[in-house]
Amino acid sequence: METGLLDAFAQEYKHLLDSELRALVEKLDAPSVIKESMIYSLEAGGKRIRPLLLFATLDAFGIDPKKGLPVAAAIEMIHTYSLIHDDLPSMDNDDLRRGKPTNHKVFGDAIAILAGDALLTYSFEVIGLLSNEFAPANTKLKLVVEMAKAAGTEGMVGGQVADMEGEGKNLTLPELDYIHIHKTGKLLRFSVVAGAILADSSQSQLDHLSGFAHHLGLAFQIQDDILDLIGNPQVIGKPVGSDTTNHKSTYPQLLSLEGARAALHKQINLSEEYLIKTGLNTKLLREITDLVASRDH
Amino acid sequence: METGLLDAFAQEYKHLLDSELRALVEKLDAPSVIKESMIYSLEAGGKRIRPLLLFATLDAFGIDPKKGLPVAAAIEMIHTYSLIHDDLPSMDNDDLRRGKPTNHKVFGDAIAILAGDALLTYSFEVIGLLSNEFAPANTKLKLVVEMAKAAGTEGMVGGQVADMEGEGKNLTLPELDYIHIHKTGKLLRFSVVAGAILADSSQSQLDHLSGFAHHLGLAFQIQDDILDLIGNPQVIGKPVGSDTTNHKSTYPQLLSLEGARAALHKQINLSEEYLIKTGLNTKLLREITDLVASRDH
Repeated sequence: METGLLDAFAQEYKHLLDSELRALVEKLDAPSVIKESMIYSLEAGGKRIRPLLLFATLDAFGIDPKKGLPVAAAIEMIHTYSLIHDDLPSMDNDDLRRGKPTNHKVFGDAIAILAGDALLTYSFEVIGLLSNEFAPANTKLKLVVEMAKAAGTEGMVGGQVADMEGEGKNLTLPELDYIHIHKTGKLLRFSVVAGAILADSSQSQLDHLSGFAHHLGLAFQIQDDILDLIGNPQVIGKPVGSDTTNHKSTYPQLLSLEGARAALHKQINLSEEYLIKTGLNTKLLREITDLVASRDH
Repeated sequence: METGLLDAFAQEYKHLLDSELRALVEKLDAPSVIKESMIYSLEAGGKRIRPLLLFATLDAFGIDPKKGLPVAAAIEMIHTYSLIHDDLPSMDNDDLRRGKPTNHKVFGDAIAILAGDALLTYSFEVIGLLSNEFAPANTKLKLVVEMAKAAGTEGMVGGQVADMEGEGKNLTLPELDYIHIHKTGKLLRFSVVAGAILADSSQSQLDHLSGFAHHLGLAFQIQDDILDLIGNPQVIGKPVGSDTTNHKSTYPQLLSLEGARAALHKQINLSEEYLIKTGLNTKLLREITDLVASRDH
């Protein structure tokens, strides 16, 4: 697998995204503690897979990915708000995320709740204020509506609810798919679809890209479950077997390890078939797909 | 004071708003528990002052207030989300709101957090999906941006943070004003400004209406503080003196009761001066102002 191109691309845009996120929060006229709390979690790192998907999609359309920075920032704000709220004591009660204390451990539960609320709210303002030259009014409105659908009860929030309701139960495969398609899949999908909306793509290109992202999201989750079972704890940064300990339903548990590996490759193949149908120059998106299939953390 | 007109108007539109809110949530394709939790708090009642301000503003422009129902629903979703999150154990830890168990007492903290998140997210989708006929793309975008500003760190969330930081402290008058202008004032103001945006008003009319709502919001809060001190607990539905017990800074405490009454009348006068400047038929808005000045709950 050759990921040199993606590596360089990811490095450059991660850096630009960090600056964009910081600048967007710093310019707010608001009490300093809430801004600090927002920046703390936005800068906690992570793979930035959603922004990368958006940038790579813009690149596929021959559009300078830099133009997508505010949209990428808005998506990352939504992802970050969901992590802050998920980590709260009344949700997953996590003290650490990526080796750093979670937001509520540093700022307290109340500020953590409000920082999440603030990031979610601000993401829509950032979309609404995109430059008219790059994103005409109708483009911005499509982004607002699709982002809300991806983040709300028909998307991420709905998946989180289903995940909580499924705890300690033996889920069926369709139930497990529902959780992942909604909890993580819809916002991943939006990251790609947002690129197509910004590029004013044809409906069929948008549909193909949407199909690509849907299957990529499932592949990502299946690999997550496999890594939890057989990954190297030093590399993935958390103990293996936590899904079993937490009585979480997983793909290897439902399909066996071999079955999960087969399902992963099926999802990867489906996502690549959709990519080909777009007829675009999708080398970066293809590298992201390879990375998801073979990642070790 | 003659409020017969407003009473009839409020009755009719409260009913329509309730139906609108229920229909908007019911049509969501989402786990039933999150929809039930959203509807539970949306139907917990309340004065619906924000929707009423929007309807009355549309009426002032000669626009059928019914057309504003989805916008009113979006605003009430934001107000409701803020109450659900404010009531959480890690925030105000309230078990009752308007005599009913708070959302988290019925659905648990996790679902309450997610119901708040879902309402906030959905409010933007509802604005984004307004009929193009009534609200062209640029109108919808203005609403998205102004609503986000009113609800976010430069508005309601910022006010909530300042309120929490001010607990147990002796605040100055500017500090107390900051809290109320942001925590409740910005969303009240948006309810009026949204009407002006939908009516495609002139900038000066929008500015006058914005000034009206700003002063009305302060009047509303001063009267709240006065009622907490001298109101009839049977009528206001909660014990009087809770601000003193909770060591909250209030207008009567900073200005004396007489000073607070004078400040209330000053704010009412200022708001009415702005109304006159609009040159619109503002009889309903004027009745709302009278109601705020003389309300006993």
